[in-house]
Amino acid sequence: MRMFNRVVIFGTGLIGGSLGLALKEKKLARQVIGLSRHKKNAELAKRLGAIDKVATTLEPIAGADLVILAAPINTIMEIAPKISGRLNKKCLVIDVGSTKNEIVSKLNTLIPGFVGCHPLAGSEKKGIVHAQKNIFAGSLCVITPNAKTQKSSFNKAKLLWQKLGAKILVLSPKKHDQILSFTSHLPHVIAFSLTSCIPDKFFNISSGGLKDVTRISGSDASLWSEIFLSNRQNLLRSISTFQTKLAKLKLALRQKDKRNLKKILSAAKTKRERLG
Amino acid sequence: MRMFNRVVIFGTGLIGGSLGLALKEKKLARQVIGLSRHKKNAELAKRLGAIDKVATTLEPIAGADLVILAAPINTIMEIAPKISGRLNKKCLVIDVGSTKNEIVSKLNTLIPGFVGCHPLAGSEKKGIVHAQKNIFAGSLCVITPNAKTQKSSFNKAKLLWQKLGAKILVLSPKKHDQILSFTSHLPHVIAFSLTSCIPDKFFNISSGGLKDVTRISGSDASLWSEIFLSNRQNLLRSISTFQTKLAKLKLALRQKDKRNLKKILSAAKTKRERLG
Repeated sequence: MRMFNRVVIFGTGLIGGSLGLALKEKKLARQVIGLSRHKKNAELAKRLGAIDKVATTLEPIAGADLVILAAPINTIMEIAPKISGRLNKKCLVIDVGSTKNEIVSKLNTLIPGFVGCHPLAGSEKKGIVHAQKNIFAGSLCVITPNAKTQKSSFNKAKLLWQKLGAKILVLSPKKHDQILSFTSHLPHVIAFSLTSCIPDKFFNISSGGLKDVTRISGSDASLWSEIFLSNRQNLLRSISTFQTKLAKLKLALRQKDKRNLKKILSAAKTKRERLG
Repeated sequence: MRMFNRVVIFGTGLIGGSLGLALKEKKLARQVIGLSRHKKNAELAKRLGAIDKVATTLEPIAGADLVILAAPINTIMEIAPKISGRLNKKCLVIDVGSTKNEIVSKLNTLIPGFVGCHPLAGSEKKGIVHAQKNIFAGSLCVITPNAKTQKSSFNKAKLLWQKLGAKILVLSPKKHDQILSFTSHLPHVIAFSLTSCIPDKFFNISSGGLKDVTRISGSDASLWSEIFLSNRQNLLRSISTFQTKLAKLKLALRQKDKRNLKKILSAAKTKRERLG
């Protein structure tokens, strides 16, 4: 028996589309229905085999046993009250938003079967054309229950991600947002700022290093503005922490303090090597 | 006829070793001799086929028609006066250092046949074990003559890099250092600082973005301390430029100014997309 009868995916972009492909590949759903704010995206998702059917209204939700909210944060926040009254009582609802506290606080109140999730499997690329069925295999998925989360829904969400090949990490929404402000949102802030500050005519006189450091500054501006604002307090703090470290390195350089400079670089190198 | 009879490579690490492999692959040299501060590195370079012979003294320089200085900046600066008196009058001497003003100012005075070069083909990895014969193919090599550079030596250096498959860009040493302070040294400063500021226990709760941004913080601490100090004035300025951009993004975030935030991110994205 398939794990789900009808799955509805809101947002048939990179993550939503990849989930559709993965669900079908693993035969976890009898039917996958896709909804997008831009109808042609959903139509393309259908042609690419990520969904079976394009929906244009919220009606198919009534018969769904899994609803996946794979839209930008603000869209998730707006859509939740519109779907909450239409859901089957036993329907599992998950999101894949990059911040969790704001979303989980609101959605766990509105939707009994909601479980906040964050698969760490994105890319700077956007849209259904970059969707791939295997992006979750071997990746990390953070599940962020709060006091209102139903145990049965949590277990089902966990099983789903495991079947997609993801390793599971359970964190509170607050802890998730604190950690990701350092390991995802700050690196994006830095990449955008670095790309901004390099004079246009210098940009191509570079090697692989610059490409790597700035790759994620090719990420979608609207999506990431929402992520930054949704995790504003944590991110302001992590930016400050970074600014302090950068100022220390700059001071060592200004003072021609080679010993201290080497010490700073060496500690970073050792830490980085652990990440693999 | 081979382009060179005897080539001596000082420093049989990633770049020196890759040059040895490429020279032999392209049959540009009859004999390649390697010298290293650490004899076992040169011996390994020989076993890996990057050089034909290990030298333990400066003696082989007398018969060389190409000497490649592929050592860290300070070592290049120290070794130059020791080899200048031993060189054949027609010998071409090139370096591959990451900064150029300091090196070219000194070496173009000491060595008539010197031509400053910077192949933008490195990696965060270090050592002969990571050397590859094809790292220069399709890469950019900046050649940095000054008023003292001999035209014939410049032409020979240019031809050599072209034969290795590199695209050539000619810049003054000062311009090179100004540009690279933005496109190479600053990204390294930022990567080291970012890695430093992330709490240890958070580091693995991340996706590909963090890996990319911090990859070059796995670079050698000693080598990069020397590079930073050798380009100190430019780098202090480029760090300041970055700090200003970062502060602007932070302010937009603090003020919840979504429109401005999106504008900053969007401009960076457009610029980054041009890099490919």
